[in-house]
This record gives sequence, structure tokens and C-alpha cells, in this order.
Amino acid sequence: MEGSYCIGIDIGGTYIKMGLFDAEGGRHAFRRAPSNAAGPPEALLEALVRACRDLMETARLREGRVVAVGLGVAGKLDTAAGRVVFSPNLPNMAGFALAPRLHEALKMPVFMENDANVFGLGEAWVGQGRNIPNWIGVTLGTGVGGCLIADGALWLGDRLGFSGEIGHMIVDPHGPPCACGQTGCLEAHASGSALIRGMREALSAGEALPERITDALRTGSLTPEDVYGAADSGDPHARRLFQRMGWALGLALGNLFTFLGIESAIIGGGVSQAWDQFHPAMMETLRTVPKMLDPDGIRILRSGLGPLAPLYGAARLAWAGLDRF
Amino acid sequence: MEGSYCIGIDIGGTYIKMGLFDAEGGRHAFRRAPSNAAGPPEALLEALVRACRDLMETARLREGRVVAVGLGVAGKLDTAAGRVVFSPNLPNMAGFALAPRLHEALKMPVFMENDANVFGLGEAWVGQGRNIPNWIGVTLGTGVGGCLIADGALWLGDRLGFSGEIGHMIVDPHGPPCACGQTGCLEAHASGSALIRGMREALSAGEALPERITDALRTGSLTPEDVYGAADSGDPHARRLFQRMGWALGLALGNLFTFLGIESAIIGGGVSQAWDQFHPAMMETLRTVPKMLDPDGIRILRSGLGPLAPLYGAARLAWAGLDRF
Repeated sequence: MEGSYCIGIDIGGTYIKMGLFDAEGGRHAFRRAPSNAAGPPEALLEALVRACRDLMETARLREGRVVAVGLGVAGKLDTAAGRVVFSPNLPNMAGFALAPRLHEALKMPVFMENDANVFGLGEAWVGQGRNIPNWIGVTLGTGVGGCLIADGALWLGDRLGFSGEIGHMIVDPHGPPCACGQTGCLEAHASGSALIRGMREALSAGEALPERITDALRTGSLTPEDVYGAADSGDPHARRLFQRMGWALGLALGNLFTFLGIESAIIGGGVSQAWDQFHPAMMETLRTVPKMLDPDGIRILRSGLGPLAPLYGAARLAWAGLDRF
Repeated sequence: MEGSYCIGIDIGGTYIKMGLFDAEGGRHAFRRAPSNAAGPPEALLEALVRACRDLMETARLREGRVVAVGLGVAGKLDTAAGRVVFSPNLPNMAGFALAPRLHEALKMPVFMENDANVFGLGEAWVGQGRNIPNWIGVTLGTGVGGCLIADGALWLGDRLGFSGEIGHMIVDPHGPPCACGQTGCLEAHASGSALIRGMREALSAGEALPERITDALRTGSLTPEDVYGAADSGDPHARRLFQRMGWALGLALGNLFTFLGIESAIIGGGVSQAWDQFHPAMMETLRTVPKMLDPDGIRILRSGLGPLAPLYGAARLAWAGLDRF
């Protein structure tokens, strides 16, 4: 569609990112605004509508028009109804029918998927997954998300409202508890939360930790970046946590590669910036543990689009949705 | 194709089963012969050619003709080359280019897949999977095989020479060793071999076992059926082994359901006859462990075609292969 654009929207806990995209993945405008997580959903909707109208005006100035909107939202979604079931980043959005409301205001198709799935769509479109038909996406953040790209398309399974939930695969039934209620999930080993909990447990156990970590734990302000800093400075506890992260990622990916008969994955999300700390243990596990796999065939890539992957994917979701419309 | 038939061949360690099938899955003839596992591959080939010619004659008597052959073989295969890489049941077949040799003799297309994959094709065609688009197949035998049916078709992944290898997913990294060299595979918990090894370990540990079991262990003749018999008679060691089998199956399926966003599986293979012994623990695990799944949506079915599932699947492989020819 000549002169046509889609709007991609990535709704995170801190920022909303928005962009105007052509059908080939070219980005023609970019906006970022605070998401005001504590505010009412109506206020967020209003801000989105305003920003979309602004991008529609940008499209008009280029003698084009916006034909659809794609939304990426963290959390459990009812994608068929376009409703947020529960979003850890935006607790006030629970139950809000975001997509239909936006559709009503803008009079154009609006599509919605969870953040890990739009990460996959973005990387498959113009990122590292461009030329790989089958791969597993992993997003490392506060939690661990994932997706499966199968034959070049986002796999949605039986459309149960979730798919690609690698973070809640159990890698070790004797492992640490997970926020989801299970024991030994990948997320309990390989998330930002797992890093923080690991340091808290080391403190409780009376281990000697760097002063900066101890202080941050006492004020409840410890971040995954702090744990990375400690590992980078040689703290053995922090290093062990990243090794455990790498081991668990290697085990989960090795299991899925063995079952799916594939050998590629792309890892993104904020905590993937700690790549040098967890990558060696992950590759060591992947090369030595799964016996069916050819160690030389395994291909684990870092996200090519970085923090913008979900934004690109949200736009791709809109374009792909239109094709089926 | 009116009057057209495909031949399905299931090559097991004890028997070769063969059948003449129409395109709708109707079976019009059936042959069974000893596979003579110790014999040379040329002798097996000769027997197959003779039996195929006999089935071709049967087709002619019905005023039809055989248009393709499908082969199901246990083991690691190079399906593109039609070559057996390694077959635990038929060690002499290692390296033998079975499919091209059969093609040469019969002058018609010959397709080959491993036994767990043809199990899936058979159940998807005329068995329990007929109306289920996405499901996991599990074959419980000496080892544990598996397959994935995705959007109604056999998933082959990156065509690495294996797919659906659920038996070599690690369910417990602290679990028992597996013949493959890994630790804690599903196969090390849920196969016929795991049952026998578990009883042997109980004997070594000085546990009191039923006399029949002890005798069979001493002569090396213990079978999974014997372990089932012991569990059925109330032996606590045998019962624990089946509970462990069920737990491990529940964990592996729960992990895959969580990642794939699906909720159906079909279980076959000889050891699945012990259903009443492992099914309760499997369902208990599936209903209580995976938090993303709706316990009421989970559907675990027993093979509808029983020991003939791979035979039907081999014929389906031939029909599907012709479509792509």
C-alpha cells in the first residue's frame, strides 16, 4: 500500500514508545512519553489517542495515511478481545479493553500482543531473525518472556492467551521458587528479580557482599544493573548468580532445541545487557549438555534492535493483522 | 487418485508390519513377518521387496496400483538420503541406504521417517489426533520417542535429522543418568529401560522385591511387563517407578504446553499399556504444577491405533510425500 503507514506502540512500565512505520519496516517518526503507571487507564488511553492523532498528522504531511495500529503490552492479555487481563507494569490496566477503545477512537484496526511476542515479530521483521525460519526468542527483564518463530511466523499455539512462555518452563524441579507459584522455573534462575533475590539470600546467609550492594538491599533499591556491576568488579556471589542464569538458559534452550529440532535463539530485554556475565555459562551448557545437537550448529544471537525490538514488532503486528483482515 | 494405493511399512526390532492403504486411510491388506534383526541388511531389503511386490499384486487384483511406499524405522535417520544412521533395534542396518535401494527395486517414490514421527502421522490421519490441530505425541517403549503435530502437520524443525525428541529433554538435572549420556532425561524416568534399571537398583540396595522380579533380574530377563505385573500386585518399588514415570511425563508435557501454548498430547507405544499405573501421577502433576494452564483444558489421550499407529503413519507419509513430489 503506497503511502500507507502503521503505528507501533510499545507500552512499558516506565515509557510508552510509539513510531510510524512503512510496510518494509522503515521507521518515519518516533515518540516517547512517560507511561504514568499509577494513573487511571482512561488517562493512558487519552494520551495514546492524542499521540496517534499526532502521528496520523505526520503521515498526512507525507501524503500518506495510517491504516492500522499495533500494541505490545507486558502481561497476560485476552488478545481476541483486545483486553489486558493483568499487567505487572501497569496494574491499573487490569480488565481494560485497550484495543477496542483505541479502535473506537481512531476508527482503524488495532491489534494487540504481549511484549515477548512483539519482540519476536520485530526481530523477525528487521532484526536478527530476518533470515532464520525457526527460532526461540527470549526477553530477559524483571521476568523472563519468550516466543517461538516457526516457519517465519509468530507461533500462537491453541490461542489460549499465552505462548512462548519459556520463563515458566521448569528447568530444575528442585530449584528456587518462582513468583508464579511453581518451583524452579527459568524465570526463578534467569530474571532481574532472580538476581536481586539471590543477593538478598546471600545477605541473609551472612555472606560478605560489596558495601554498595548491602546498602541498596537495605533500602530496597537494588537493581539488576547493580548486581551486574558487582559481578563485573569480581564479586563471587554476583558472578555465581550470572553463571546460574547462563546454565538455566542453556538448559531451557537445549531442551527446546532437542524437542523442536531447531538450533537458533535470539535474546533481548534489558537484562541481556549483562551478556558477558551469563553468555559463557549458557554456551558451555548448550555445547556440552544436549547430546542430540551439533554444538557447532547452535546459534544464539543478541537482539539486533535492542530496546526498540518490541516497538518494531508492534508495527509488524499491525501490518500482519491487516493482511488477515 | 482413484484405484491408487500406498504401502506402509513399520520396521520394528521383532516384526515388520506392512499394509496397503488408500488415500483416506482405509487398510486393504496387512502382512507381518519376523524382522530377523540379526540378519544382513540385504536380506531385509530382499524380504521387503518381495512383500511389496506381493502387495502390488493385491492392488492389481483390485484394479488399482501402488504409487508410493512409506517406511517407519526406529532410530536416527538421514531422511533426506533415506539412510539409516543408527537403529537400536536393527544394528546391522547402520549406514544402509534403505529408501534408495527400495526405490531402485520398486521404481516408485519411497519416503522414510523415524518411528515416533510416523506414530504422529498415523494418529493425526485416522487416530486420536484426527481433529486436533496441535498436539504432542509420546511413544513409551524401551526408550521414549516423541513428535509434534503443528497446524495438523508433522513438525520437522530445521530438518536436522531429529525432531520431537521429548525423551531427551531433561526434566530433572539431578535425576538418573540416561543412555544418551545426559542426566535426568524424560527417557531415564519414563521408559521401559528406566523401569528395569529402577528394579535392578532396588535389588542392589537390598530392598525386598517379589521373587519373580528377583529371579528375572538375576537371569537378565526382566521385562517392563514384569514390572507392571509387580506394580499391579501392589509391590511398592514397582509402584514408585510408575509414579516417577507419571511425574516426569507430566513435567515434560507441562513444560512444552507452557512454551507452545497448547494443551493436547497422545501417548502410545508398548509401555503405554501400563496406563493405569502412571496415568494418575501424570495427571496430578499436569493439573497442579503448570500455573499457566487451565487444568480443565488439558487433554491427554491414549493412542487410538495402538501398535498399528506407526504402520498407518508410514502409509500417510507416502501419501503426503506424493503431494509434495
